[in-house]
Amino acid sequence: MPPDHTRTRRWFLRLGAVWSAAVVACRSNTPPPSSAEPGALGATVSPYGSRSRFEKAARYFDQNTKVPLEEAASFTPLHETYGIITPSSLHFERHHSGVPALDSATHTLTIHGLVDRPLEFTVDELRRLPSRSRIHFLECSGNGRSEWGGGSTESSAQRIHGLTSCSEWTGVPLSLLLRECAVQPGGTWILAEGADACKLTRSIPMKKAIDDAMVVFAQNGEPLRPEQGYPLRLLVPGWEGNANVKWLRRLKVLSQPAMSREETSKYTDLLPDGTARQFTFDMEPKSLITRPSGGHTLAGPGVHELTGIAWSGRGTIARVEITVDGGTTWTPAELQLPVLPLAHTRFRWSWKWDGREARIASRCTDDTGYTQPSLAELIEARGTHSQYHNNGIQMWKVAADGTLTNGNRA
Amino acid sequence: MPPDHTRTRRWFLRLGAVWSAAVVACRSNTPPPSSAEPGALGATVSPYGSRSRFEKAARYFDQNTKVPLEEAASFTPLHETYGIITPSSLHFERHHSGVPALDSATHTLTIHGLVDRPLEFTVDELRRLPSRSRIHFLECSGNGRSEWGGGSTESSAQRIHGLTSCSEWTGVPLSLLLRECAVQPGGTWILAEGADACKLTRSIPMKKAIDDAMVVFAQNGEPLRPEQGYPLRLLVPGWEGNANVKWLRRLKVLSQPAMSREETSKYTDLLPDGTARQFTFDMEPKSLITRPSGGHTLAGPGVHELTGIAWSGRGTIARVEITVDGGTTWTPAELQLPVLPLAHTRFRWSWKWDGREARIASRCTDDTGYTQPSLAELIEARGTHSQYHNNGIQMWKVAADGTLTNGNRA
Repeated sequence: MPPDHTRTRRWFLRLGAVWSAAVVACRSNTPPPSSAEPGALGATVSPYGSRSRFEKAARYFDQNTKVPLEEAASFTPLHETYGIITPSSLHFERHHSGVPALDSATHTLTIHGLVDRPLEFTVDELRRLPSRSRIHFLECSGNGRSEWGGGSTESSAQRIHGLTSCSEWTGVPLSLLLRECAVQPGGTWILAEGADACKLTRSIPMKKAIDDAMVVFAQNGEPLRPEQGYPLRLLVPGWEGNANVKWLRRLKVLSQPAMSREETSKYTDLLPDGTARQFTFDMEPKSLITRPSGGHTLAGPGVHELTGIAWSGRGTIARVEITVDGGTTWTPAELQLPVLPLAHTRFRWSWKWDGREARIASRCTDDTGYTQPSLAELIEARGTHSQYHNNGIQMWKVAADGTLTNGNRA
Repeated sequence: MPPDHTRTRRWFLRLGAVWSAAVVACRSNTPPPSSAEPGALGATVSPYGSRSRFEKAARYFDQNTKVPLEEAASFTPLHETYGIITPSSLHFERHHSGVPALDSATHTLTIHGLVDRPLEFTVDELRRLPSRSRIHFLECSGNGRSEWGGGSTESSAQRIHGLTSCSEWTGVPLSLLLRECAVQPGGTWILAEGADACKLTRSIPMKKAIDDAMVVFAQNGEPLRPEQGYPLRLLVPGWEGNANVKWLRRLKVLSQPAMSREETSKYTDLLPDGTARQFTFDMEPKSLITRPSGGHTLAGPGVHELTGIAWSGRGTIARVEITVDGGTTWTPAELQLPVLPLAHTRFRWSWKWDGREARIASRCTDDTGYTQPSLAELIEARGTHSQYHNNGIQMWKVAADGTLTNGNRA
């Protein structure tokens, strides 16, 4: 609220029907005194900017975790980010041995194994090769895992679903590098290895490697951030985060998957019958309302904008629908352009809240025709032993006092 | 160059025809030793990330300028940015009284003048209204002004053309706010005023205000950076940077333009006949090759990727063409998708350089059919008294030793 100005709600006689719940704007024909000191010059230009000291949005991480910090994760504040680009400083993190401090002047990428011409590239060499930029989401397959029990008491969009982010990535098509190495006929898989202390490794089918995988060196216009794999990461668009190997140092062409730790004891989905899904690479269509969401409070009855993000690891978001009655009825939301494949898509919808308790949610459908399931449907199909690939609908409960909490456990 | 590895050019027997000029990759079937200490854990997660200490890209500004620093500008390093999103930390700056330190908790926006319901909004209120995100470039109309004399000795893409950047902006459509204020019939212009010490003011026609102008509070997913107007700026997509008033505190509806300093003594284009163009809002179609560009050196004859950016303040880029013979012949470049209206568009083209002196450039055409002129054509039409709106073709001269310099003065 601005200080020293009388406010009236009279003008809401008209605006009231629309946005009075969101704003309490003041009626005044006199501009307020300037908040800048007259004649006082501001700060000058600078070589590399930083955000306002009045802004505090931060990645969330449990500082009291018993898990060693090198196994830590940090979560994007989805409830206070805007548009489809995630600020690089707020991109989620998930490390298995922490963030190594690599120097792009000495780091290299080796491609070897079942190839006629094994090659080693410096980072500068890769930066000079033909490159492309693509806006793609990344999501940890463990995102939303708190909800597998049928809903939790976790409170916020950030803490439940903050292991997804979206950036403009620039790099070299992996197909170009593989062509130059001359992959042998038996080369059907590729083992990607990171330069972190655990040498994280994942196996990628050759078809995906050739289709659209990239060796990425830049994110949102500048070199990759250290926690995103500086100076090089593998990007396998639409596939679970763990497969997008960071601090990439080696690609070995194989005739079969390597069955590494991260694709056997981890990142497999234990099903009710005791078998497990393995190599479930695709991140299935998913969406959630991010504002308002758990932790927010509606100022009062009236019209409120609901906004959130939807994404699919298999294609392009075709439709997002909103429910405000716990899933009984659904209405289409507006999709913000451009709607890009394998990228966060921003949606918006205007809700006239009557002030009574409600359960609100979004669900998305991608261009393959797949519609995001309810959490109950997902658990019915996959049981409750899995920790991965929760793409169920996220309900938020709106109380009569306007406060929002996790509404998954009805 | 990676240390301790024997390199051979033999594999370029095949690659040689294509990318040998760009890379000198090593042939080896043994991965290099890891650059990470075995068992040594990296850094842990963090609330708000920062770039690698090995990266040094910076906005350029003249630290020895005789102009007071509050009148200063800083330039985006276009030669070392990627894709279409400019990192917020490297977005160009142009301030007339420096950067005020405003607090979003107390800053307000007043809309008054020829309206039935003058209103004052807090920043929180604006953030809750229906918003939209758009990817748009900004360009200072003084960008490239060193070249008006027919070409200068300025050396780099950054120093000549670095007063343009591109971001995803989020804010409230100005049309929504104006509708709620009930603009009176005589209200045909809007005076926008900033909260910086000089109270920078510009007049905007009502038509543009209603068409697509926005009151912006976020940039690239997080609140506006201080040097981009935190907490609020006006965005008039495609129009000269100065009209996109930063630190926006007031919009006054008028029946005519206010004839402020910034639209009379400044930001007008003096023509050869002594008259001046005024209110030349549109930034006309423009492009340049950013890599390689002045200051870069080609490693040797062979194939090199040429890449750069194109943009138009009047629509969408339809075509970019490349010349490598000083403008005699032109060949289409590849446009990177998505190609968005009023946004930087990334283009790429593969050039097989024969090792002889050359003059290379790009030229763009937008969807209105306008093609970027040569610098000589521009000077022919507009004379050399103007400092603004240089959208002429930028030539780079490639010397036989591979070094690139400004090639505008042939």
